[in-house]
Amino acid sequence: MNKRIVVIGGSAAGPKAAAKAKRLDQHAQVTIIQKSPDLSMASCGYPYYVGGFFEDRNQLLSTPIGVVRDPKFYLKAKGITAKTQTEALSIDRENRIVHCRDLVSGVEFDEPYDKLVLATGASPIIPPVPGHDLQGITTLQSMQDADFLRKIVDDHSVSKAVIVGGGLIGIETCEALQLAGIQITTIEMLPQILTFLDWDLAKLLENHVRMHAANVITDNPVTAFLGENGKLTGVRLKSGTELPCELAVIAVGVRPNSALAGKAGLTVGPRGGITVNEFLQTSDEHIYAVGDCIEVRNRLTGEISPAPYGDLANLEGRVAARNAMEGNHVVFPGTIQTGICKVFDFAAGSTGLSETRARAQGFDAVSCVTSGLDKPHFMGAKLLILKMTADRKTGRLLGLQAVGPGDVSKRIAEAAMAIMGNLTIEDLVNADLPYAPPFSPAVDNLIMAAHVMENKMRGLMKGLSVVEFKERLERKTPMCIIDIRSAEEFEETRLGVGEVLIPLGALRGRLQDLPQDKETEIVLFCKTSLRAYEAATFLEAHGWSNVRVMEGGLAVWPYPREK
Amino acid sequence: MNKRIVVIGGSAAGPKAAAKAKRLDQHAQVTIIQKSPDLSMASCGYPYYVGGFFEDRNQLLSTPIGVVRDPKFYLKAKGITAKTQTEALSIDRENRIVHCRDLVSGVEFDEPYDKLVLATGASPIIPPVPGHDLQGITTLQSMQDADFLRKIVDDHSVSKAVIVGGGLIGIETCEALQLAGIQITTIEMLPQILTFLDWDLAKLLENHVRMHAANVITDNPVTAFLGENGKLTGVRLKSGTELPCELAVIAVGVRPNSALAGKAGLTVGPRGGITVNEFLQTSDEHIYAVGDCIEVRNRLTGEISPAPYGDLANLEGRVAARNAMEGNHVVFPGTIQTGICKVFDFAAGSTGLSETRARAQGFDAVSCVTSGLDKPHFMGAKLLILKMTADRKTGRLLGLQAVGPGDVSKRIAEAAMAIMGNLTIEDLVNADLPYAPPFSPAVDNLIMAAHVMENKMRGLMKGLSVVEFKERLERKTPMCIIDIRSAEEFEETRLGVGEVLIPLGALRGRLQDLPQDKETEIVLFCKTSLRAYEAATFLEAHGWSNVRVMEGGLAVWPYPREK
Repeated sequence: MNKRIVVIGGSAAGPKAAAKAKRLDQHAQVTIIQKSPDLSMASCGYPYYVGGFFEDRNQLLSTPIGVVRDPKFYLKAKGITAKTQTEALSIDRENRIVHCRDLVSGVEFDEPYDKLVLATGASPIIPPVPGHDLQGITTLQSMQDADFLRKIVDDHSVSKAVIVGGGLIGIETCEALQLAGIQITTIEMLPQILTFLDWDLAKLLENHVRMHAANVITDNPVTAFLGENGKLTGVRLKSGTELPCELAVIAVGVRPNSALAGKAGLTVGPRGGITVNEFLQTSDEHIYAVGDCIEVRNRLTGEISPAPYGDLANLEGRVAARNAMEGNHVVFPGTIQTGICKVFDFAAGSTGLSETRARAQGFDAVSCVTSGLDKPHFMGAKLLILKMTADRKTGRLLGLQAVGPGDVSKRIAEAAMAIMGNLTIEDLVNADLPYAPPFSPAVDNLIMAAHVMENKMRGLMKGLSVVEFKERLERKTPMCIIDIRSAEEFEETRLGVGEVLIPLGALRGRLQDLPQDKETEIVLFCKTSLRAYEAATFLEAHGWSNVRVMEGGLAVWPYPREK
Repeated sequence: MNKRIVVIGGSAAGPKAAAKAKRLDQHAQVTIIQKSPDLSMASCGYPYYVGGFFEDRNQLLSTPIGVVRDPKFYLKAKGITAKTQTEALSIDRENRIVHCRDLVSGVEFDEPYDKLVLATGASPIIPPVPGHDLQGITTLQSMQDADFLRKIVDDHSVSKAVIVGGGLIGIETCEALQLAGIQITTIEMLPQILTFLDWDLAKLLENHVRMHAANVITDNPVTAFLGENGKLTGVRLKSGTELPCELAVIAVGVRPNSALAGKAGLTVGPRGGITVNEFLQTSDEHIYAVGDCIEVRNRLTGEISPAPYGDLANLEGRVAARNAMEGNHVVFPGTIQTGICKVFDFAAGSTGLSETRARAQGFDAVSCVTSGLDKPHFMGAKLLILKMTADRKTGRLLGLQAVGPGDVSKRIAEAAMAIMGNLTIEDLVNADLPYAPPFSPAVDNLIMAAHVMENKMRGLMKGLSVVEFKERLERKTPMCIIDIRSAEEFEETRLGVGEVLIPLGALRGRLQDLPQDKETEIVLFCKTSLRAYEAATFLEAHGWSNVRVMEGGLAVWPYPREK
């Protein structure tokens, strides 16, 4: 008899598993059970549809050549039966049957399987605060949500909105609605937005969001949604502030949809995701699970947790299908938490561990922040800020964060591959990457970061993060602060924290202007702190023993400045 | 006594070595001897200056904040003595002295050293054909060449030019002059341009260059430069063709400048570059050598040859300085020949080994060509064509080539890191790369290529390259050729090689239209051959035993087509 494969869930991981299973065995009966009316929604594209990057909603549902991926398409092009608007009610594991209900007709029926793949996804978390069911409160999780928000954008029917949650989807939604001329405030309960980044880089993005006229409030949770006649009129924050708004988009994270699995007695992890082994097999050998509903292993820390990323969903779908069809032989290696997000004309990305996360995981982590142009300056270069984290013990690259208008995506991809290849800083300093002026500086930003990291790890450069520097300023630590830029640059913009200006070219002739006590802490900076490092080596050679370079320079200063 | 470091050569590798040496020991006397009047020229930027991408030539000579890197800058900012317009005449190794001549005053002098770094660069090869010294023939190797060509562009003084050599610099120069409205023909003696690529991908670029109204002639060397009154009037090709032109730019490669080293008795390799060990030390322990004048090791093949890349020059300079100052402790790992080049609105890149090169090196190489969009189709995606090469024995990634308007640079960088990390195709199929719609498709193009490669290596997909398919067509091999696209796509463009149109969605109902002899060779294709692969698995499941997918689909067809 032909093998029967049933897949529950028709967004990303599910259709991928179904299609791969069918290609591996064209005689198999492959069925997708999908609750929503839509299939294969490009859900990561919702914010861009809402933001007007393209007009036709069907683009989110179609192949690159414009064919909508509906049940007819699945049947004719792929030989797969897709049952939409159909809910999987329960799983009878003993008899290998999924009990289903057609949500249109109400008719219930059984779907027998030889192998079952669960791809039930995740649902947005709704904070349990009063008023969360008022009209005007939404999430951006479904095609229907996207339609709802796009209509608001097209109708210009809202003037003020709040985004609850400053994560990836929150910030993408903030951009989408701000572009539509809506006055936006993003509210984050934690002390920073985009928690895949360390505070210092996240703060730069927060400033960038503000520069685009969208307000950001951190460290201040929403305590109530306010309404009149069932309609949202505002939100109240923990601080007591009330913000009037007609629309609130909740984006505080998602929770794996594991109830169906749990009810069937499958093991569910402590973080709410379905437990799978390295073959993506659940605690029932005939059932696999993939996508946002599962917990996967972090390749660097071994931690098991949900990893709701669209790219991983696709990869997992393919792996589960292979194992379901051919017996367990393909290991899914897990995630290194690589992610990226557009933030107006900046991008923000991360792979591996942030400094915060690496420390929390017990690594002897060393980080350095660098800034620079992503191409030669004469080729229309843009600023790129990197924060690299390495393991002091092994020298291994643990993580890279990148923000700025420059080519973030390429450097995060480079670092992700380096992490997967277990490369060390020593390997990275001599990496052979593609160079030509239209694409990269002669020394790629990632390699430059590795050079700085190596200097720091060898003790050649003593760095000081902007956060540490700010703390010293606030504690009024005695320091000699030197801005090593040119007078022109100083006129244009400056910190104004008591620094003296000694341009690098003048330093060698002005040693008498430096503290005579050679143990005085000297903090040097310039635009990117490359010149500051040059100056530091010079001062150290002349006996100053406590010279520090403000890492990344003025380009990464996240606090207010004098001008 | 303070250590004396002398660096001969002031373009890329030399200044990097000098600056790093000085930072490592600020008490060292560091001297650069430079023949040209300029220092630290961004020579890879010459074609873009000629092409008018920016106006001010000093941008090529200055720091990102606009300070020209002249001897005064080197002295004041870095404490380095740079002697320009100064020639190193010979090296007295026994007494550790470089004999120099000031080219302005004619005065000769000695420059004693403790450690010497040779960074003498490379010189353009001039083909030994009659007339090569006519006025109007140039290279694009020096700042003076760049000035000469830019003046021609600004003065509109030339209407027809030829580029001799279709390599990286040849193609960049072709673009620069074509943008200036000059009628260009690029002449290549080999059967293809850009020999770091395999023929099939190079041919796509050749077509692209032609689309931009620049002619390309391959497989046809220049046999004479023709002139009148000492001025160039045309070139004659081996075929006998004569092309009138007022300008010829020769770009057939470079030869390491190793004469000074050779005269001093240092070992020079069979390919003309100075021989160095893994510490970049020459056969004299007090002399290091870096940049275009040396031969370096290919990390994949172990071959030793010149690798004249600007990025490597910088890395080598840093390594040599560290070893010269601190004793040999840093190994330069060599090159994987990563390179990239802008070709009008396409880019072309390569890392590791091409299929041709891998086979020549004795690898049991397997390659696959894939094409696809570099983002979701609704996000302004562009076409990207990849050719991946792997070692069948170990599964290891050996190389990636990429061409197209899409983001070539990111995928070459990803692959370069993967090669340096010894990743296998099995590793790549589940790589965790940054995904969001503005930056990448859900399954990154490199991962998609790895999926196809894996299917091919496992025998699930039987591929046929466009070259193999064309050969079969020319030999009139009996085949059933099926275009699996939609009727609309077929109307818009098609091969016209006797194919029948059976859209994927109709295939399952049209098996009676297929050859009844199930051993007939069937060749399937669509736009990218993704649908063709889907169809192939279906036909194989229904008994056809000889089904092949034309790899990469119509998107990579380099030959003329019906429409």
